Amino acid sequence: MTNASQTKVSQRALQAAGQPISRLMGMALSNPNIISLAAGFVDNESLPTEITKEAANEVLANDNHSKVALQYGSNHGDHELRERILLHAMEMNQAATSEITSYNTKLDQVFITPGSNQLLFLLADTILDPGDIVLCASPSYFVFIGAVKNIGGQTYGVATDEQGIVPEALEAALQQLDNNGRLSKVKAIYTVPYFDNPGGTTLPAYRGKQILDIARRWSREQKIYVISDEAYRMLRYQGDDTPSIHHWDPSLEHTIVAGTFSKSFSPGIRVGWGFIPTELVGPLGDQKSNVDFGAPLLAQRIMATVLRNQQWLEHVEKLRSVYNERRNAMLQTLTANLSDVENCHWHETNGGLCVWLTLPQHIDTGMDGQFLKNAVDAGVIYVPGAYCFASEGELANHSTIRLTFGVQSAERIEQGVRILSEQIKAWQ
Amino acid sequence: MTNASQTKVSQRALQAAGQPISRLMGMALSNPNIISLAAGFVDNESLPTEITKEAANEVLANDNHSKVALQYGSNHGDHELRERILLHAMEMNQAATSEITSYNTKLDQVFITPGSNQLLFLLADTILDPGDIVLCASPSYFVFIGAVKNIGGQTYGVATDEQGIVPEALEAALQQLDNNGRLSKVKAIYTVPYFDNPGGTTLPAYRGKQILDIARRWSREQKIYVISDEAYRMLRYQGDDTPSIHHWDPSLEHTIVAGTFSKSFSPGIRVGWGFIPTELVGPLGDQKSNVDFGAPLLAQRIMATVLRNQQWLEHVEKLRSVYNERRNAMLQTLTANLSDVENCHWHETNGGLCVWLTLPQHIDTGMDGQFLKNAVDAGVIYVPGAYCFASEGELANHSTIRLTFGVQSAERIEQGVRILSEQIKAWQ
Repeated sequence: MTNASQTKVSQRALQAAGQPISRLMGMALSNPNIISLAAGFVDNESLPTEITKEAANEVLANDNHSKVALQYGSNHGDHELRERILLHAMEMNQAATSEITSYNTKLDQVFITPGSNQLLFLLADTILDPGDIVLCASPSYFVFIGAVKNIGGQTYGVATDEQGIVPEALEAALQQLDNNGRLSKVKAIYTVPYFDNPGGTTLPAYRGKQILDIARRWSREQKIYVISDEAYRMLRYQGDDTPSIHHWDPSLEHTIVAGTFSKSFSPGIRVGWGFIPTELVGPLGDQKSNVDFGAPLLAQRIMATVLRNQQWLEHVEKLRSVYNERRNAMLQTLTANLSDVENCHWHETNGGLCVWLTLPQHIDTGMDGQFLKNAVDAGVIYVPGAYCFASEGELANHSTIRLTFGVQSAERIEQGVRILSEQIKAWQ
Repeated sequence: MTNASQTKVSQRALQAAGQPISRLMGMALSNPNIISLAAGFVDNESLPTEITKEAANEVLANDNHSKVALQYGSNHGDHELRERILLHAMEMNQAATSEITSYNTKLDQVFITPGSNQLLFLLADTILDPGDIVLCASPSYFVFIGAVKNIGGQTYGVATDEQGIVPEALEAALQQLDNNGRLSKVKAIYTVPYFDNPGGTTLPAYRGKQILDIARRWSREQKIYVISDEAYRMLRYQGDDTPSIHHWDPSLEHTIVAGTFSKSFSPGIRVGWGFIPTELVGPLGDQKSNVDFGAPLLAQRIMATVLRNQQWLEHVEKLRSVYNERRNAMLQTLTANLSDVENCHWHETNGGLCVWLTLPQHIDTGMDGQFLKNAVDAGVIYVPGAYCFASEGELANHSTIRLTFGVQSAERIEQGVRILSEQIKAWQ
């Protein structure tokens, strides 16, 4: 047996936020029939079994190809996969705008990571020191907020409207930070421009350009990057695609793009990517070689094969129809039940997997509150909105909820939203 | 275009060592026929194409099973895989010793990581603050030395002999650190007990137990962990397996075990693992959820299927015969060419993939030296031993070389070692 020996974990470990989702799942266990509108999982039914089997067999059929996939790969990721992803993104941007741009993005600016989350983590670790600041939408993706906190950084929330980050509010926040002598701490602006998680908003193209201009203009003491997290871009159910911020920064001087096949193909294959500025290629690569020496290659070769066989976009079409039905079910049930409730509102998202619900101020939706407990007892669970706010800047709104429509059937979504609506209306 | 805006990367990024292997590969490009005895890759010919194809088809054949593999998984890793890995390790330990031990290690102490490298990184990030110290063999695995440096920690080298870390030297190093008031900074002792990379030495069972006892005894101010990196354990070509340190710490109070299928099956599938003390499960899990939210699940399900079908150990037998031939080729050619050279010696490793070569002191084998340049011009490349030494403690020996026999055929190994031997004998 050991002597005294108290365990001391690192400062970093103390700063690592536990995932709220695990606590919620624990709560949900009390009611086995609970309808979860909390999890960020994807629809199980439409996962691409056949396409993946075909691609895996293709990768492993030929002995030479198979041995490439089973050997160590490069820290950057598979060459063919990186090429196909970059090309696809440039084509999307070109198609979404009438302006013709010549992209100078080079292949060594493309990294493959197991999910876009790892790209966000590596990036935070590469550009942030403790005390550094990332400006972000209020509300924002809680996993990224957690990654910044893990490093000892600060997230600074900026006001949003139905079109995402308000450029004037961003400008004002930078002015405020400058006035306080903290401009040199600002390293990045984080945005989820397509169907924001959790906000559900989509940044119009002109706002993306404005945010980029603001980042450039305020890069007085050091470069301020724009991190464009495009995880949901392919999951659009309404309207036309808009060009990425990448389009106005074609060689990626200020812009970092993160993307993933987790939502638009399969999270179990777990292939994401990042496009990054040239000066970060070396440092981020070094961080990556510490974390895992390159993403698992077999999964990358399977994904490259799916793209080569043009089966990805076909699959995305199927997903769009599945999720569109669920989104409609959620929005219609909200309208039918809550449109008369004063100070209750939500954004009619045109893509992604989230709806952000704001309730009257007397309802605290938090983890330890009675409202959540009642909702769980009644048979529905959600993510308390409080998790989605930055550590400073815009104040957290504790009367908010993140709903997701990725996992449940349309019928269960209707049922869940009805139960939740009854709780809201019953709450005094 | 941007304004002034100098890029500033984080302190961490500045501390991230570039991988020496990439620089070496750059040098090797000058000679396309070069024989690389540098890379830590595995044999290409024996990669398990058929077994993997069968397992992938089994995972993807049944729609229910396939959907589990394509969906998000748990942060810890696949349940069945964790069970099989833990059971296998306990059986190995029990078989390797006459003592019967009752293992209390619980399944939630088992984490799956993409390669054991990630486990080492997560661990370093979880237990080390800047300035903290890890004691390790001199020489030690350079990737782990780099991970500690990345975090701002110090590695402290301890003298080794033909059986790995010398317990008396470890004791003396701790005494020295205590005398200097730095004992509270010592968080771990790192060892690669089976066929050390780069040393090639194997820690006898009694030494493993001694090291564990030393760690327990010196855990006065805080716990000192023993990190047992067992990446090469299955690749034994001679003698009997020895029990892991885990055997004397059956509930893992001080011991962390890292393992991987990268060397003993396939690095492209990239499944590794860690067994960790209970008090680290929460903190390390939180770090992991920041880094990737769980290793890619499809690869884990494939690996679980390979184990269930009992095809792993069968494959390991094949690998043993392949690598044994190469090891013999390397050792015999060294003996034939260098046994007469004064102050030139190496360890006759009985497993793994490395031979550690010490040359006469007037030869500097370093990256920027003439000796390496001559060797490359003559057609052979190696890893300069200087990369394998800790940041303090035992002094680095710049007249050392890490040779690997994993990639080249026996014939090419003989040829490469002959060329290198000529360089050594010609060097004045």
